[in-house]
Formats: sequence, C-alpha cells, structure tokens
Amino acid sequence: MSAGVSDRQLRLGVFVQAAGHHVAGWRHPEAIPGGPDLALMRHIATAAERGKFDMFFLADNFATGYAEHPSSIGKFEPLTVLSVLSAHTTHLGLAATASTTYSEPYHIARAFSSLDHLSGGRAAWNVVTTSYPKNGAVFGRQHPSHADRYAIAEEFVEACFQLWDSWDDDAFVMDKVRGTFVRPGSLHAPDFHGKYFTVTGGLNLPRCPQGHPVIIQAGSSATGQALAARTAEVVFTAQNSLGDAQDFYRGLKAQLAQHGRREESLKIMPGFMPVIGRDEAEAKALFAELNRNLDMKQANTVLSDRLGTDMSRFDLDGPVPDLPESDHLKSRALLLLEMARREGLTLRDLCYRVAAARGHLMVVGTPVQVADTMELWFREGAADGFNIMPPFFPGQFDAFVDQVVPILQERGLFRRDYEGTMLRDNLGLARPASRYATQMESAGE
Amino acid sequence: MSAGVSDRQLRLGVFVQAAGHHVAGWRHPEAIPGGPDLALMRHIATAAERGKFDMFFLADNFATGYAEHPSSIGKFEPLTVLSVLSAHTTHLGLAATASTTYSEPYHIARAFSSLDHLSGGRAAWNVVTTSYPKNGAVFGRQHPSHADRYAIAEEFVEACFQLWDSWDDDAFVMDKVRGTFVRPGSLHAPDFHGKYFTVTGGLNLPRCPQGHPVIIQAGSSATGQALAARTAEVVFTAQNSLGDAQDFYRGLKAQLAQHGRREESLKIMPGFMPVIGRDEAEAKALFAELNRNLDMKQANTVLSDRLGTDMSRFDLDGPVPDLPESDHLKSRALLLLEMARREGLTLRDLCYRVAAARGHLMVVGTPVQVADTMELWFREGAADGFNIMPPFFPGQFDAFVDQVVPILQERGLFRRDYEGTMLRDNLGLARPASRYATQMESAGE
Repeated sequence: MSAGVSDRQLRLGVFVQAAGHHVAGWRHPEAIPGGPDLALMRHIATAAERGKFDMFFLADNFATGYAEHPSSIGKFEPLTVLSVLSAHTTHLGLAATASTTYSEPYHIARAFSSLDHLSGGRAAWNVVTTSYPKNGAVFGRQHPSHADRYAIAEEFVEACFQLWDSWDDDAFVMDKVRGTFVRPGSLHAPDFHGKYFTVTGGLNLPRCPQGHPVIIQAGSSATGQALAARTAEVVFTAQNSLGDAQDFYRGLKAQLAQHGRREESLKIMPGFMPVIGRDEAEAKALFAELNRNLDMKQANTVLSDRLGTDMSRFDLDGPVPDLPESDHLKSRALLLLEMARREGLTLRDLCYRVAAARGHLMVVGTPVQVADTMELWFREGAADGFNIMPPFFPGQFDAFVDQVVPILQERGLFRRDYEGTMLRDNLGLARPASRYATQMESAGE
Repeated sequence: MSAGVSDRQLRLGVFVQAAGHHVAGWRHPEAIPGGPDLALMRHIATAAERGKFDMFFLADNFATGYAEHPSSIGKFEPLTVLSVLSAHTTHLGLAATASTTYSEPYHIARAFSSLDHLSGGRAAWNVVTTSYPKNGAVFGRQHPSHADRYAIAEEFVEACFQLWDSWDDDAFVMDKVRGTFVRPGSLHAPDFHGKYFTVTGGLNLPRCPQGHPVIIQAGSSATGQALAARTAEVVFTAQNSLGDAQDFYRGLKAQLAQHGRREESLKIMPGFMPVIGRDEAEAKALFAELNRNLDMKQANTVLSDRLGTDMSRFDLDGPVPDLPESDHLKSRALLLLEMARREGLTLRDLCYRVAAARGHLMVVGTPVQVADTMELWFREGAADGFNIMPPFFPGQFDAFVDQVVPILQERGLFRRDYEGTMLRDNLGLARPASRYATQMESAGE
C-alpha cells in the first residue's frame, strides 16, 4: 500500500433510531426503549462526540401502524431534534434524512441552511426518495414510480443547490452608517423552471458556513448511483459481502471523473451493525437473546416492505421464494435475495437478518473482531468509513465508543481529536465555492 | 369592575424580528443589526424569561430582495431556531409562524408536535396564509385568492387537529416483557379527504405534552376572525385606536359562543411597539433618530406590500390617495388607510408609521407612559395582553423587560413568576382532550 493509503482515516457516523436497529432491540433489559426521548438523544450525541464521530445521523419516514419497527412510529422530527442537539455539542456533524418525494426544495434548502448556521457548519442532508407507497398516503398523492422519484430528486437537489447560492458569501455587510444591509449585486435569485418544480426567488438566509450542507445519498440502484456521482459527498450504502462492497466502491468512484470530481470528494460509508460482547460467546448470546424477543409478524412486515411484496403468505421454514423485481427498493431487494441464495437461508433466517440489520454488514463478536472487520473493509477498498447501527441504545453504542474506537485509534485508523469545527473539515471535504464566485473573480472584483 | 376582572392577568409575547421592527432599527448605534445571529436570539429569549414573558414569537415569510425589511431576508428558519432556544430556556413559550398556503398539514403538524415534545410543552403555531403573491414564486404555483387561502387554511388546520390526535395520550406503553410498544386500539389514523388535502395515515409521534400546540391566528379580516373563533387560542391583531380595538375584541369574543367556547379560551393580544426613553424627550429623540435613518424607498416597499399597490408613483408629501380594495391583506390595508384619513397623514407620514410598527399600536414615551397605555387597553376591554414589537434589539427590549415589566407587576397586572412549565399553564388555557378520549370513557375504559 502507498503512503497515502496509510494516512487515510476512517469516517464514522452513528445511525440513530431511538429504539435500536434490531427490531426487538428496545426489549433488551439494558435498552432505553425509545420514543421521543431527548435524554437518550443527548446521551447518544455526547457519546458520539466523546468517540470523535464525524456525525450523528437520523433516519426518517412517514409510517404509522402497530406492525412497524418501533423506531418508525415514536420519534422526533429530525431537523428539530438536531437543532436541539446542536446546543449540546460542539464538533459533531448533524445529519438528517429528508425525502424529495413529498416536499418543496425551498423548505428543505432553507431548513438545512438554517441548521448549518445554528450549528456553526455541522449540517448534512441525507437525500432520499420515499420508497414505500404507504408513506405517501399522508400526503394524498399518487406515489411516483422509482424512475419518476429519481427524476424528481434530481430536480429537487439542483433547485436546492441554486437556492443555497442565492447570496454571495460576503453579501450581508450590515453597514449601519451607509444603511447597506446587503451588498448590491450579491443576490442571485434562482430562476429555475423544471418539469416538477419552479423556483423563482432566493433564500432569506445568508450563504451557510459550509457553503451548502454536506450531501449524503443513500440509494444504491443504478439511478441512485448516478445521482450520487453527480451530487453526493457521502454515500450510505447497504453491503454485506466484501467482494460486492469492493465492486460497489470501485464502480461508484469510477463514475466521479465524468463529473470532474476526484475520488476523495465522495466518502462511501456502508451501514454496519456491531453486536458486541466481552467475548464471542457473550456476543452470540446477546444476538440470540435479541432474536428470541423478536415478533415474527413484525419482522415479516419489515422484510415485506424491503421486498415490496407481502411475505406472510410463504412458509417461514421453507426457502426464500423467487420474487418479481420490485419498483420501490431495487438495490436492497436484490441484495437480500442474493444473500439468501448465497447462504441458503430459509425465510425465517432472512427475517432474523432483516430484523437485525436490514441487510447491512453485521459482526457478532468482540471489540477486536469488530475492529478487524472494519479495518479489512477499509484497507481492501470496500469502505471509507461506516455508519454504525447499534442493535439497541445506549449500551451497545457506548460499548462501541469505549471499546472499539480506542482500538481503531491505536491502529492509526481513526482520529484522536477533531480536525476542525465544521463537518466538512472532519470528513476531509472542501467547502464548495458559490457558482457565482468565479464570475466575480474574473470580473476583477 | 368585578373582582374577577382585577384578578385577570396580562399575557405578554415578544414578537421577534432580529433586525428590529422599525425598518431602520438595525442602524441604531445600540442595535445588533440582525442576520441569523444565535447569540442575539439567546439574549432575547433569556431576557423574555427573566421578564416572565409567556412567549417568544417569530414571524415568517419567504421574501428575498434588496428593498425588503432587513428582518425578512437574513434570518433563521423559525422551527430550527426555536428548537435550539428550547435548550436554553425552561418556561418560555416558543411560537412560530408557519403558512398554510405553501406546505402540507403532515409536515407542519409533525414539526410543531416535535417542538412541543422537545420543549416539554411550550410550542405554539401562528397559523397564517401567505399574503404576498411574490412569496409564492419560490414554490412556482399560482398564488391563491384571499378566499381560497382561507378555505385552504380551514382544511389545513382541521387536518392538523386530526393528525395531533393520531395516538391516545397513553398509547406508547413500551412494555418490554410483553413486547407491546404501543397499546392496541390506541391509533386513530386520520382518513381525511378535503378539497385541497388528503391525509390518510397518522403522525409518527406520540400525542404531544400540550395535546396540541397552542394555536395563534393573525388574520383580522372577517374570514380570519371566523377561523380564529373556531380554532384559535391566541389572536395577534393590529389595532391602533382604543375604540376600534374594543370593537374588535367584543366582536371576536362574541363569536366564540357559537362554537361552544368560553371567552377565556381565546386571548386577544394586539401588537404593540414601545419606543422607550428615560423621559419623554429622550423617547421622542430616539424615534426621530430612527426615522432619520429610514430609507424612504424601503419604507415605500413595506407600505406598498401592505396596501397591495405600488405607492412609489404617488407624491410623498401629498395626501394618501384613495385605493381599490386589495385581495391580499384586507384588514391591514383598511386599518392603514383609515388611520391616514383619521389623522390627516401625508404619504410620507404614513411611510414613517408603517416603517415603524406596520400599523400596530405605538407609544413613544417613558416606561410609565408605556405601562399606562397597556393598562388602559387591558382594563377597557381592548386586549388580554400584547405582543411587544421593539423598534430594535436588544436594547429596546431589555428596556421593556427591566423598566416596564416591574411597573406592570407592581400594579398587579402581570405575574411575578410562571404558573407552570407548559405554555398553556401560563396562558391559562386548558389542555385539549383528544377527540377520541370521550368515546373511550363512555366505552367504560
């Protein structure tokens, strides 16, 4: 390996679902069961900052029902809770998922810019499309097809980029004596006319500390990758075999050049569930305990959502049946079916896997074993870092911070202190110049 | 007056626009000029809590441009900044304006419920329609007429009420042993089909501490009053003559009975700009100084917005011309034109008035004079309290908190300490029961 590679540092996010990522995680005696629990959110954020994590990362959805994952139905709205957490942290990145399928570019661009201002440059937006038709029901519209959702997302993100450049960095001069609040010529109000959105008018906020929030993208389908290659700075992906993860990593990074981007400008961070015990036996016992507490009906709902078809009609102890391609979660459905075929899983086995990590990489073992897998994936070109998905909070996340992070630091893989105060500083991402900055320079200003 | 009336207490909100309410307020040497300044927001919130204010109240709009009021173009998104302030305060109500014209009931209902959870029951929503067509441009839609905007608002609010009752108060039992996260039968997902909105599905948050956020309404037109009489708990209105204010107060309170509501269930809080000096001369000099700093073009834009017509074509030193009725701010336009006729104002005079308080009540004087006017309006049935609109921050607000509030307290008109931790406790508003609670009780549960 080159010297450059050994200097390369892991990036870490904690992917937060209050009730834990394992569907039955909240039932563990040591778990705080979740719900909108601000004390728990603060505990996790404080632990993440103690562990020098790059970011605190919130999922999102619009689901309600008895059979849903408990983390889906009793939780804060992401931007409001991240705003509160900005007051209790100083360096931790604050990432929220927000869907492009049922919102307006102006609202999203403005809220994330505001969070970036409030946090001193720590905001990130995980750009998603809403996969599940049932989530569209609260908005009363026909749920768009996979292709349409990505076309909408493309436009949505472009409109947001234009909104974030509404004002030059030095626009708000607030000169009391001259009575100049904003510098003349500093406003570049978008005049955006797309197929799905029209935005004529700018943001009512100065350009934000990071230029624009860090853009995360979570879709791994071909269309998702194309959008990521053009616009994303972090990719959150589900991978569970080293070979496939390497293929994904190489494939996506190779697409950057055609957009004039360098490989370092995009960090690939797969989800990763560490189930941690003091020894292997304890970790295995913990995982077995989690699975014993699993409501198979609920696990089946979670799986059915991922596969886009009702799985309750199949025999749990039979093989995973062949299924037609689904329109709403292409890459995840393929990954799960491929994993089932590769490992000869029964439907029940697959339910256990999905109920735990939804198809993401999982290690059940000691802190050293967890660190070993992370190092292997990192060194072998499968990941730039990971989004940690503890099976439950706060115990399993504390275990990661206090037992795994020190190993990664000793191996020189992970920072001992933050590089800067902004999320971009820590992720090693450049601050984007305004699209109007070059024109100004060439005009001699 | 009856004993009951003398026990009645004033309610106070601080209406926050960072650059001050006077269009030239930010230029005063003692002003912090505004922009998205978190330290200033914290200073104001801390002062408000020191002064036992009911609430910190944020305006909102979607405007951008050089000629706008400086407070409109450089500011935080309201819900994110109120979330941060919830971490720095313990009793202060947190009220945000959010328009029903360009959003979705689900997003608004969810964000305010989340703020209510995060703040322990201190959220309020100022329900408005977006008056100015130019603000719709960032959403690329035809701006609806006044009548349509209110029809949309009616539906929007009803859908939000239903969403806030998605779950019974005791739904989230989180029983680890039984594996019951939410109690069966506790979900009442809306099945709402209106003309403008369809909402089928519930919120993914428990019912909030206050049942639902306190509902504020700011429109004073006939349709605005009808909506307020049915749904509002606080009305923010612009009044500048005692007689008109009494008529408005009596008229609106009289409409409550037809909705089965008592007069105390709605608090009428006009906007009020105190320009405070140690003596009257100092206050007058301060007001003159503010007006000297006024950019008349900007003042004219602010006035033109309110009147719905471009006023720059008229002679500044001539009389205020007769104007056709506007479709977008009926009550405010009428109030301004009536004030101009009543007081024989020139167009320039009217610009000064609008640039200061936008037509709201204004007193330029000593702390005692300010308190006298508040007491008069309060005792004479013109107001239940006021939303204070300082000409600039933080000095003029600090003056109110430290010099006027003690006078109100000494006169027995205002609390010396908070009655409770929730905004409803302090405003004297009951916690609304869920619409499904009675059914449960009658079913013997």
